[in-house]
Order: sequence, then structure tokens, then C-alpha cells
Amino acid sequence: MPIPSGDADLAVVVKRLPHGEPTPSDFEVRSLPVPELAEGDALVRTLYLSIDPYQRGRLRPGPSYAPGVNPGDVMTGETVGEVVASRTHELAEGDLVVGARGWRTYHVVQPHQVVKLPAEGPSPSTYLGVLGMPGTTAYSGLKDIGQPKRGETLVVAAASGAVGSVVGQLAKREGARVVGIAGGPDKCAFVEDVLDFDASVDHRAPGFPEALAAACPHGIDIYFENVGGAVQVAVFALLNDYARVPMCGMVANYNDTTPAPGPNLGFTIGKRIRIEGFIVSDKPKRFGEWRALAGPWVQQGSLRHREDIVEGLENAPQALIDQLNGRNFGKLLVKA
Amino acid sequence: MPIPSGDADLAVVVKRLPHGEPTPSDFEVRSLPVPELAEGDALVRTLYLSIDPYQRGRLRPGPSYAPGVNPGDVMTGETVGEVVASRTHELAEGDLVVGARGWRTYHVVQPHQVVKLPAEGPSPSTYLGVLGMPGTTAYSGLKDIGQPKRGETLVVAAASGAVGSVVGQLAKREGARVVGIAGGPDKCAFVEDVLDFDASVDHRAPGFPEALAAACPHGIDIYFENVGGAVQVAVFALLNDYARVPMCGMVANYNDTTPAPGPNLGFTIGKRIRIEGFIVSDKPKRFGEWRALAGPWVQQGSLRHREDIVEGLENAPQALIDQLNGRNFGKLLVKA
Repeated sequence: MPIPSGDADLAVVVKRLPHGEPTPSDFEVRSLPVPELAEGDALVRTLYLSIDPYQRGRLRPGPSYAPGVNPGDVMTGETVGEVVASRTHELAEGDLVVGARGWRTYHVVQPHQVVKLPAEGPSPSTYLGVLGMPGTTAYSGLKDIGQPKRGETLVVAAASGAVGSVVGQLAKREGARVVGIAGGPDKCAFVEDVLDFDASVDHRAPGFPEALAAACPHGIDIYFENVGGAVQVAVFALLNDYARVPMCGMVANYNDTTPAPGPNLGFTIGKRIRIEGFIVSDKPKRFGEWRALAGPWVQQGSLRHREDIVEGLENAPQALIDQLNGRNFGKLLVKA
Repeated sequence: MPIPSGDADLAVVVKRLPHGEPTPSDFEVRSLPVPELAEGDALVRTLYLSIDPYQRGRLRPGPSYAPGVNPGDVMTGETVGEVVASRTHELAEGDLVVGARGWRTYHVVQPHQVVKLPAEGPSPSTYLGVLGMPGTTAYSGLKDIGQPKRGETLVVAAASGAVGSVVGQLAKREGARVVGIAGGPDKCAFVEDVLDFDASVDHRAPGFPEALAAACPHGIDIYFENVGGAVQVAVFALLNDYARVPMCGMVANYNDTTPAPGPNLGFTIGKRIRIEGFIVSDKPKRFGEWRALAGPWVQQGSLRHREDIVEGLENAPQALIDQLNGRNFGKLLVKA
């Protein structure tokens, strides 16, 4: 597509690092002129922003595994977009690309910074979710740490979300019994009826720990950790000998100003439990492997996913705030 | 040796499961007649009992990785002893064997239950310490989980003890920088001067966390966990990206009646930390591997070790109580 006449480069800039729960006033939307291109660059118009829990971590001071965002910076995050102007032979107008980073309408990119998507195939938005970083996170955490085997029980929370939904479906393909934890009856129904998990448990319902135990009559062999908090406490009590716990995220704690205490680790000894953190970007080759493996599954509809789309780049801050409170239902995207 | 005339089979029996810290009155010493032998059995007179922190765990109700001891049972634990009578061609009078279990003077064994020691070689007591279960624990935890590499920093607590002293010396052989934590100046001097660790830190001295940080200027890549408590807190704060934590024991908590809270596990994600429990008896072949590897080192004196020997089987309960409070200095044995 050509650049729409009068289109501006809207950018969501971080005004200050949030203390505790972020608020919309921690961000500011600025309107900038559409950037000019230098030789070798291409201009990409954003179609979708990806909203992911890890983005809260980028808004913290201090060292982390990836550079943080500072006040005055455009907020970070993956996008998919369409090339609307190009001064490189490697990208042509109309090409769809994933990988430009930042909450803004236009990105100037060099070809090595992005991955070109096939012209035919799953919709571009899937490359931010089921086929993108979240799907690859599920794949990588199971392949490298979780390693589900036939007959084992796997539990994953945020089970209707972008990562959890793939974790459970992949583990089912390996022959595991899969129990999904989700918040509220609608998400639980989706987990059982659409994702086809063996059972779902509502962590907001009274008697959650007992319901989880009932759904896991043979205990838990793999817990794919992406929430922490009270769910972690309930799951850890049910872990079997030799259980694996890929540590992917602990979204329940992301807005905490001081870390909540955790479990006494003595239980890991007698039960020979492995708890291991991982970051998907450490293994870049897993992204291509996963796209090649799961692309056909998404096309055929055998790997199910759900998107939750918010309209308007200016609503990205509120979308992130909502996600940190579990108010999204499926992979959260902002249509720019 | 023949059975000393008038020798009795003293046995330390558990009277009740201790609540919190064990006391001598939780145990009772009984004098039994020396057992008679059936065809196929041998009679072993105990030379040494091994006193190890894991024995506190056997005195707890509820399931664990190994069967617990019940009131009325002889207390469990490894021994080395000498065959004093035999009705099997596989064992002869005078043979030294390790593996009979229980705090008593005489054991009736079948040949498959014990390992015969070489007639020439390290002293029999070493097969309960540096060449036995504790040494194999160090070897197994490093080989399977810790995997120290040249230039990495390894920290181990109870560094003058049976496990810690081997952990550090093995890691030094792999080229790691080794920092030992111990309680008090005498143990720290031993760790530096005799075991030749790169540094020692006294966890009882004021400013322990700061001293540990100063001793680990490049952070910590491997923490061999055998104590827990305040030492764990100080070490975890210094763990590097990709650190490994073989979870071997948490003796600081063994007398607790309710588990103390532990760390919020969020730090394992960004730092990609692996925390993994193990039990040495899961890998029986490691015992023979280790005896073959380390036997010559012990003979040559290149693998240093220290024994702390208590006289008299009736003093075994107090020895265990003292060990749980860190009052032993080296591998704790009871001479029966």
C-alpha cells in the first residue's frame, strides 16, 4: 500500500517508569512526521503491535536480560507491518515483515532486522502470536526443559493465552495429559472445548487448590510457569518426583514493588525437581524451526489460537495494563 | 577377627520421631545377643557408623524418597565393618565391607547387600566419606548438574565437611575458582590452607553477605546447595546468568517444624538459572565410578579430607544432633 496521505507517525513514548501497576499517564502519544528513508532502508507501516507481559519488565530500572526502556523512549514491542517504501532491493512495497520494534506507526528498518513473511499463508497477526515469539516460547520451553512424555501430566496457567494455548496443544501432541488453568468460566470453556485440553481449572473460583488436585489425580510432571502467585503455590504442592518446571514468566508479580516470598526449596531435593528459567531470544534458531513446524498446523486449523484485538495504537498502554490483570482473552494485539 | 568373647550387639533404636531438634532421649541403646547366621549370610562387626545430615530426614513422618524410620526400628545409616563369621563363599573372615545399614554392632548381611573393599588401600573409614556416599554425592551433583568450567566461580557451604570439601576440590580440578563457606575461623583456615580453595568466608562472622560478595568479584556460576537458610539468601543474590544450583541438602532447615519461606523465583527467569534437586542413590553406578576415580587421589594425598571421629556407638545420637548444628569438623564418624 502507499503511504496514506496525511498519515502521521504516532508513537507511544514512556513518560516515566511506572511504580507498581502502570497507568496510562505513564505514557504519552506523540505525532511525528513520517520518517525519510536513507539508501538501504525500507519504511514499514505497522499493522499490529504485540502486547506481551514481558514488556512490564522493560519498564523497570536496573539490569535485566534485555535493555530497559527509559523515559523519553518509544515503548518497545514487536510489530508486523507492510513495506510502504523501499530503498533496498531486499524488500519491496507490499512485503509483510515481522520484527520491527516499538509502539509506533512507521518504522525505518534495514533488511537484516526483520523477517519477511510468505505472501500466502497464515494472517500476518499470527506471526506475533501462535507463530511468533509467544508460540516459539512455548516450543522452546517444552523442547529444552519441559520435555513432556506420553502419559505424563502437564499443567499450564494462562491457558487461553498466547503461550499457554500452544504449550498445552504441543504437550497433547506428545501424548501428555494436559490441564489448563484460566481465569473465569469463559476462558475455561475455551480451553476445554476449543483447545481440547483434558481439563481446565478456574483459578478465580473458590476451592481452586482442591479443584486442581482433582484434575491431576496422578500429580504433575511438568509445570510450565508463566504466572507465579497463588497458582504456583497450588501447583508446587502437587509436583511429582522428577518434575520439570520451565520458568517462563511470573506475571502475577510483575507489578509488585517488592518481591513476594517464594517456596522453601527443600522440596526440590527429595523430589529431584528441576526449576529452570529461559528466555526465548537466547535461541534464535528456534523461531525459524517453529514457524516451519507450526505454520502448516495453523493453516490446517489443527493448532488452535485466539486473538484479542484492540483498535488504535493510542490504546496500547491500556491494553498492557489490562493484560497484566488477565483481562485479555487470547493473544493480545493492537491494530495500528 | 573373631567375635570378641562377651561382645554384645548394641543397637541404637528410635524411641520416638523428634519434633524439631532431636534429643538423646528420642533414642535408646539396647543390648542384644550377637545374631546367629543362616546359610548364605555373613556376620559383619561394625567398625564405623556414618553420621550424615540426611538421617534427620529419615526421622520424619510422611512419604519421602526413601523409607522412613519408625519408633522401635534400629536407626538407619551406612557402616563399614569386618566379616567375623561367614556361611557364604563370597565373603571370608577378615573381609572389609561397606553398605550394611543401621546403628548397631553386628549386621547379618547377604553378599549382594555390601561392597567388599580392597585389602590394600585407603582406610576403611574413607569408604563412608571421601570415597563413599558423601564423595559420590559431590561427584554426581557436579557431573550431572553443576558442570563447572574453567574460569567459572563455584561456591559451596559446609566447605570443610564430607561433601563440601570434595565439591570444591573437584571443581578446582576443572579449573573453576572455588569459594568455600564455613562456620568459624578454624574451619575457614582448613578450607584455604589444607583444601586449597581460592577463598573462604565465615558465615558466622558479621558482614557475611558483603564478605561473600568480595570473595566473588565475578559473581557465582555454580552454587552447590547443602545448607539453605541465610547462606542461600546471600548466595542467590550473587548468581550470574546461566548459574546452576545442584540442590543437595538444606541442613539449616532440617530441624524446622514448618518450612521457612524461600526466594521469589522470578530471578530464575531473567538469569536463566537452573535449580535442580538430586539424590545420589538414584545413580548407583556413580558410586563405583567415583571409587575408581578418586581412590588413587586419596592414596596419593592429592584429594584431601578430614575425619571427625566420635568413640562409642552409644554416642551416635549426640553426634547427629551436633552435626545438624555444624559442630563437627570434617566427615563425622562413630567408632563402634
